[in-house]
Amino acid sequence: MTDKLLEKLTNQLSPKRLEHSLGVSKAAAKLAERYGADAGKARLAGLLHDCARVMPSNILLQVAEASGIVVNDVEQREPMLLHAPVGAVIAARDYGVDDPEVLGAIRWHTTGGPHMTLLEEIVFLADYIEPRRTFPGVDRLRKLAKVSLDEALLSSYDQTLKHLLAEGGLIHPATVEGRNALLIRMKEK
Amino acid sequence: MTDKLLEKLTNQLSPKRLEHSLGVSKAAAKLAERYGADAGKARLAGLLHDCARVMPSNILLQVAEASGIVVNDVEQREPMLLHAPVGAVIAARDYGVDDPEVLGAIRWHTTGGPHMTLLEEIVFLADYIEPRRTFPGVDRLRKLAKVSLDEALLSSYDQTLKHLLAEGGLIHPATVEGRNALLIRMKEK
Repeated sequence: MTDKLLEKLTNQLSPKRLEHSLGVSKAAAKLAERYGADAGKARLAGLLHDCARVMPSNILLQVAEASGIVVNDVEQREPMLLHAPVGAVIAARDYGVDDPEVLGAIRWHTTGGPHMTLLEEIVFLADYIEPRRTFPGVDRLRKLAKVSLDEALLSSYDQTLKHLLAEGGLIHPATVEGRNALLIRMKEK
Repeated sequence: MTDKLLEKLTNQLSPKRLEHSLGVSKAAAKLAERYGADAGKARLAGLLHDCARVMPSNILLQVAEASGIVVNDVEQREPMLLHAPVGAVIAARDYGVDDPEVLGAIRWHTTGGPHMTLLEEIVFLADYIEPRRTFPGVDRLRKLAKVSLDEALLSSYDQTLKHLLAEGGLIHPATVEGRNALLIRMKEK
């Protein structure tokens, strides 16, 4: 990770968002060490995961379209969700990241999904447990993340779904597919 | 609705299940009258909606396969969900129902889905609010069903999803797609 990259990111993100990104980066590196993924890649993906989070909806939709990202019904109505796949595009284009594993971890960090790699799962989870997060149950989730990656991932998916049910929000199909695939994996273990 | 059909169903279902089916039939007819669907079709679909509910998992899977029903990952692991699409097959084959609207209402009554007709929505909702149901919030849902079909459908979807989250159960994609489509319709009204 170069100073130049960090400087560029500092110019792009609000201080709060930068602090969150540094938290995710650190949490992801710790999880990677615990569960046997590449800590350097986890750190980089965590740092850059929200690099497209500042883009307004119309720009997210434009970049998605220009990059060949298929925008589904839910993303069309909640373009903010596109900051993850568009973030992977921006990380490659503007931050010079060419590692497909790092880009994948940025790609899937918001919705989760059914075919995530270990690194992708780690960055997805790190985004929930980084120190700035304050939702009810976060401390339990932090503890869970130290003993079982699968249980912590399941709890993260459930947290998102409960929140969307409470808010009357649209549910991204990848979140449900990811949770289903995880449950099936857990039962087969 | 013929006496012969009712006699056949009485021989197939347990007394409890038959009572539930009669309750759904009546509730569906009432909803149809309220919201402008065909009450006779609603009554018939309600009566027959669980006609395949007594089949064991292996038979449900066999009939589904033999009938060209595509079985997804969730249904493979929770074959009970197939009693709805297989029920439509049985209603046609064993009960002589040839009305596609009635068969559709049996087909979608468990998961819901994104392209339901009014009759399908009514039978789906009737299955939640018939008098035997006792889950927390059912009285509120019964009242809601008298004033807003959309709000009552949303509450039914949410009820199912909350239950599956609490139980650690797999979520059928059609349930989420149905809820998303409903939310989009409600926002566009």
